[in-house]
Amino acid sequence: MYQLNAFNPQQFLQQHWQKQPLLIRGGFPGFVDLLDEHDLAGLAQEPDIDARIVSRNGNNWQVAQGPFDDFAPHCHGQWSLLVQGVDLYLDEATELLNAFNFIPRWRIDDLMVSYSVPGAGVGPHLDQYDVFIIQGKGRRHWQVGNKGQYAEHRPHPMLGQVEPFEPIIDAILEPGDILYIPPGFPHCGEAIEPSLNYSVGFRAPNQQDLLSSLADFALQQEGLTQRYQDPDLKSRPLSGEVLGSEVERIQELLQASLQGPAFTQWLGSFLSRGPQEESIEDAEVALDEVFEYLQNGNALQRRLDFKGIWLESDSPQVQLHLGELNI
Amino acid sequence: MYQLNAFNPQQFLQQHWQKQPLLIRGGFPGFVDLLDEHDLAGLAQEPDIDARIVSRNGNNWQVAQGPFDDFAPHCHGQWSLLVQGVDLYLDEATELLNAFNFIPRWRIDDLMVSYSVPGAGVGPHLDQYDVFIIQGKGRRHWQVGNKGQYAEHRPHPMLGQVEPFEPIIDAILEPGDILYIPPGFPHCGEAIEPSLNYSVGFRAPNQQDLLSSLADFALQQEGLTQRYQDPDLKSRPLSGEVLGSEVERIQELLQASLQGPAFTQWLGSFLSRGPQEESIEDAEVALDEVFEYLQNGNALQRRLDFKGIWLESDSPQVQLHLGELNI
Ligand SMILES: O=C(O)CCC(=O)C(=O)O
Ligand SMILES: O=C(O)CCC(=O)C(=O)O
Ligand SMILES: [Co+2]
Ligand SMILES: [Co+2]
Repeated sequence: MYQLNAFNPQQFLQQHWQKQPLLIRGGFPGFVDLLDEHDLAGLAQEPDIDARIVSRNGNNWQVAQGPFDDFAPHCHGQWSLLVQGVDLYLDEATELLNAFNFIPRWRIDDLMVSYSVPGAGVGPHLDQYDVFIIQGKGRRHWQVGNKGQYAEHRPHPMLGQVEPFEPIIDAILEPGDILYIPPGFPHCGEAIEPSLNYSVGFRAPNQQDLLSSLADFALQQEGLTQRYQDPDLKSRPLSGEVLGSEVERIQELLQASLQGPAFTQWLGSFLSRGPQEESIEDAEVALDEVFEYLQNGNALQRRLDFKGIWLESDSPQVQLHLGELNI
Repeated sequence: MYQLNAFNPQQFLQQHWQKQPLLIRGGFPGFVDLLDEHDLAGLAQEPDIDARIVSRNGNNWQVAQGPFDDFAPHCHGQWSLLVQGVDLYLDEATELLNAFNFIPRWRIDDLMVSYSVPGAGVGPHLDQYDVFIIQGKGRRHWQVGNKGQYAEHRPHPMLGQVEPFEPIIDAILEPGDILYIPPGFPHCGEAIEPSLNYSVGFRAPNQQDLLSSLADFALQQEGLTQRYQDPDLKSRPLSGEVLGSEVERIQELLQASLQGPAFTQWLGSFLSRGPQEESIEDAEVALDEVFEYLQNGNALQRRLDFKGIWLESDSPQVQLHLGELNI
């Protein structure tokens, strides 16, 4: 069990969440690593894994995209191995993520784990998402700058960095220390000793993400097929004109797709799904078999690639969303 | 010039448009065909054309999808050649479509032309869109049934038909006669003599069409990148719960994408674009060259694959939409 120490969630939410970075010294006292660098290298060989090796020789930055068969060609100079979505492979990751349950589960994206040799890091950069970076074994020098406009550049096509920044947090993280960084605050970590870092990453969809997922969903089912109608059509002097009332009718059709059962079903499946976009296989058991199983006092285990979430509701029946599966 | 005769647009819109089928006898007196069957076969060889040959031998229906190099293998028994989007290839089609200017241009989809040998037709079927079917040369027997629930079947994977229906219109069309059919009314045409038929087809997007086009547009540009934010995040007893206020915030993000300049730009480009989905090549002239050209009294010619439309506006400046091009 991972439990936060010396930490007040309410105060954190009020003063820091999405607002200000925070260093939590000894956040996990006696922190026990979830894995070691050999396990991490093993995960980086998994066929569907999102893994990268970022290496630096002086000013020469290289990025290799996994999965990896052979690490040797990429591990030159100062290098880090970064593996996304470790929570999909490691049961214990759920326990670490549970320590952050004061933030709703749907906001959590994934657990990223990095291993860095001394001197290594991905360089100064900005992210669009909140992150808690937990120091595992080793010590690492972290700096965080203030939110602002920073010129961006790409020392490698797959690596975005910003210019050096004035740190507002400048600390050497020890095992169990936690650094919280809101979106848009530049940060940079450089390992002093061989280091494991755990990034609890958050998810905040933008309009593009929402629209394209909703559109994909709409195309797959029959709930969003209301068609434009104008039995009250009015002529106009020039046929090229689109009347304001027609624009409004199109807006209404789109607005109608943002509510109702089809919208709720999409939203539940969207928010419960992890970063991976594959869909769950068809359930092999009937729903009443599941109920019987539960009524006999048995417990279900969550598939690691779906969050179990439900939408707040006044009705005594709630629908549990697990990707495409809605119970 | 094609001009409707014995036809009252206001009365048509009130009593028929999207409501009731109508036979307009002598709608185009002395109708002159836009092309003949040899021209149509020529179009059916064009690389990007959407053309089909539907043929029938007793109860055996076949459908071949063009473009066609060789017609002979498909023209057995009673056969029709149907070519969509003829307005993209034939300047004169614009003049025929202009006769329907009492309906706004953005509602028009395309001009389909069919050639049928005696006895031929695509069988009884329903469409989701309004259509005016103009009889060109030859005579054809048309029947239209009432709107209702009709069992659908597919005598060929590419051919949807309905069961036989009780006709409410039953007529032999002569050159220049026009049949208007609203969505959902079953209809069936059977040529008596070798026949050309011109279908002015309409377009009525449904929620799926709108959402997927808007999402494609959103992904291509920077106007719809507002991201979910919750600096006021509230904890909850069970982290799996998604609060109603969070659902509302997501709805608001989506709703915000249904108004404003980015939405207007999308809508203009969506409504001005024809059924083909390719985008216009980059304009090769600068905008001020265009203005100078126009100020010198020259006229622009519309590219056949885009409608020129504009949205009603109180401002003295209107934006003309031509697919991706907005002037
Ligand atoms: O572990 C690292 O080196 C990078 C961590 C980081 O920058 C992040 O998670 O945002
Ligand atoms: O021309 C034909 O045979 C088919 C016409 C038709 O059914 C239509 O345009 O909806
Ligand atoms: Co970062
Ligand atoms: Co039809």
